[in-house]
Amino acid sequence: MAILTLTTDYGTADHHVASVKGAVYKQLPDARIVDISHSVSPFDIAEAAFQLRQCYAHFAKGTVHLIGVNAQFSENAPHRIAEYDGHFFIAADAGVFSLIFDREPDAVFDINLPSDSDILTFPVLHILVNAACHLMRGGTPEVISKHVDSIHVAQRLRPLLEEDAIRGHVIYVDRFGNLVTDIMNTLFKEVRKERDFTIQLRTGKTRISKISTHYNEVAEGERVALFNTNGNLEIAINKGAPGNGGGASQLFGLRKGDLILIIFHGRTHRQNDFS
Amino acid sequence: MAILTLTTDYGTADHHVASVKGAVYKQLPDARIVDISHSVSPFDIAEAAFQLRQCYAHFAKGTVHLIGVNAQFSENAPHRIAEYDGHFFIAADAGVFSLIFDREPDAVFDINLPSDSDILTFPVLHILVNAACHLMRGGTPEVISKHVDSIHVAQRLRPLLEEDAIRGHVIYVDRFGNLVTDIMNTLFKEVRKERDFTIQLRTGKTRISKISTHYNEVAEGERVALFNTNGNLEIAINKGAPGNGGGASQLFGLRKGDLILIIFHGRTHRQNDFS
Amino acid sequence: MAILTLTTDYGTADHHVASVKGAVYKQLPDARIVDISHSVSPFDIAEAAFQLRQCYAHFAKGTVHLIGVNAQFSENAPHRIAEYDGHFFIAADAGVFSLIFDREPDAVFDINLPSDSDILTFPVLHILVNAACHLMRGGTPEVISKHVDSIHVAQRLRPLLEEDAIRGHVIYVDRFGNLVTDIMNTLFKEVRKERDFTIQLRTGKTRISKISTHYNEVAEGERVALFNTNGNLEIAINKGAPGNGGGASQLFGLRKGDLILIIFHGRTHRQNDFS
Repeated sequence: MAILTLTTDYGTADHHVASVKGAVYKQLPDARIVDISHSVSPFDIAEAAFQLRQCYAHFAKGTVHLIGVNAQFSENAPHRIAEYDGHFFIAADAGVFSLIFDREPDAVFDINLPSDSDILTFPVLHILVNAACHLMRGGTPEVISKHVDSIHVAQRLRPLLEEDAIRGHVIYVDRFGNLVTDIMNTLFKEVRKERDFTIQLRTGKTRISKISTHYNEVAEGERVALFNTNGNLEIAINKGAPGNGGGASQLFGLRKGDLILIIFHGRTHRQNDFS
Repeated sequence: MAILTLTTDYGTADHHVASVKGAVYKQLPDARIVDISHSVSPFDIAEAAFQLRQCYAHFAKGTVHLIGVNAQFSENAPHRIAEYDGHFFIAADAGVFSLIFDREPDAVFDINLPSDSDILTFPVLHILVNAACHLMRGGTPEVISKHVDSIHVAQRLRPLLEEDAIRGHVIYVDRFGNLVTDIMNTLFKEVRKERDFTIQLRTGKTRISKISTHYNEVAEGERVALFNTNGNLEIAINKGAPGNGGGASQLFGLRKGDLILIIFHGRTHRQNDFS
Repeated sequence: MAILTLTTDYGTADHHVASVKGAVYKQLPDARIVDISHSVSPFDIAEAAFQLRQCYAHFAKGTVHLIGVNAQFSENAPHRIAEYDGHFFIAADAGVFSLIFDREPDAVFDINLPSDSDILTFPVLHILVNAACHLMRGGTPEVISKHVDSIHVAQRLRPLLEEDAIRGHVIYVDRFGNLVTDIMNTLFKEVRKERDFTIQLRTGKTRISKISTHYNEVAEGERVALFNTNGNLEIAINKGAPGNGGGASQLFGLRKGDLILIIFHGRTHRQNDFS
């Protein structure tokens, strides 16, 4: 049976996550449920999307990913199933799918299951759980939902490309204060073309000119730039973290949304250095 | 095999929850364990009871609910099993069962299993886990415990009823700052008798005259009153939460224990409006 | 199939734990995974070791314990498997094993599995998970790792013994503010030899002369000394906790690393009391 993952803004102190799990196990006693995160900032679909982008591919094909963020009834956010890369994603679609996927999903469906409760304040529990269980059992989306043509597209920051520069952004600060950026290794390689480069933080006060392959390539307390397992450029302090000398976010004063500039140094210019 | 749920005040940073799970899996490698909450305020059986009340019914009949709050040896809090609504609840009974149930339980038992350790500081691990595993295997309470006549009854705030008013209370503030009250939809309907009404917060400074069926019936940032999936009246700010414009608790300055007044407007009075 | 436990400093807000679980279930859909703690202070192998010491023995023999703290590539911290007391422990060995075990492990192995990713920033996900799955399937360490002679030994505080005293330390403060010490009941009995004793906190300002068998042997709000289920001497306030009148840490002003002194009163001296 397929695995179910849960990504919500419910927190873990309250009973909501347990209610959802109870409802799943009531239908599928042998289900396997994995918590992605229940600490998504309230109503923040971009943050939910970020967490799923970073980890969904580590799950087997066929996994059902249920997103319980901003899932209340809303005309502008229909309850949908999206198939992408062999995985199923279930959410109220106000744009969250577009923030997870790199391209159009393989198929999209409007869920048309009735609520199993008269009370309509918890549609994840009374509608989306039933859609998830149907898919986990191996049912096809068509039985419980109607094919539609496209998803809602939410705007997101994307890196700006120039011939000699990438202007990216901090998109997440993790528990260690590491700065995760929207600059992917594929993009970096494509633009770089074997040129030297400088990563500038805070308009150049802090510079890094090397991509490391792991944190311990630099000494403890030193800045390091590397690509994380999902391919995002990450700026970190080796062994730094809040409470442990400070992480990169704290030491460089950088937060979500802030600019990360990479400047590439042209070959022509460098050859002229010797002229 | 029956599911086991855990509701404790152990937190998730420390090893205690894992110790309990390890001990369960040692006996029952195929057990299924669901965390309700481990963030119950230390020793707060009312809060543990609240979390279980809100979610236990979403689990299948036969589920075993183990409560690890204030479970230390105490003459006034015998280790007990209570059967209620087809579910088993295990706790040290200083009144916690009476705070979960709406009526007398179907049966109550004093557990008389010996501790499996000489050290008596963790009876949940060394006694209650063994009771839970016995029930999960399908064993009957009588084998490990002795039938008793009643549970301890803890006092709790209840709504005060007048002919034209309900005086209820905030009984929980969730992660979103939503105010969950002890006014149930069944009570509300019974007292209302199709009359108009006004919900008054903070002696009438804030009023709501409508029950919504879901949050998005009001604009973002607006106050909304609705019944949650368990039937409790809830006062919320649509899309509000701490860090997101403020939730109802913050904006109205209301906390656990505070009064929520509903005034019903008599038909006679309204008909006189036209006289 | 063997259980896998996870002890990390990843936190539960971020996706890292889910990535690890997804990768395990991809290989072993029927795996059983238990979270010990993901709130270990960043890079703090002593704290990770403490949590595992306190709970590993509650799991069945054969359990695989994966430690995701400070597991980055480092010449001084080879990725290793240690067999101890019928359990498997997997970690980057900069000394963490020596902080968990009371004696030399039964066997130690250097893992020589290749990374399953070109990106080397998350070796727990790309190497250690594969080692864990191999062991969970019942595979032997020799197939994926090379026997080595010894583990790295990290220094740790240990109680100092004198003829009439034990000088121990607070090694952990739990959610209740309880002070867990490195004074074990076996050591205490051995040194005590039936003598009376006084536990002195803060150079004697606070004294306790009795070991209780459970918290409720003293009144609420009173100090109590007892041995926890793992055998560590613990100093607590009965029913005290942060937010509930204060726990022992707060009330006595004691933190991790602080001294706990036990003075034993010689028989000779006591007999002289009557002379």
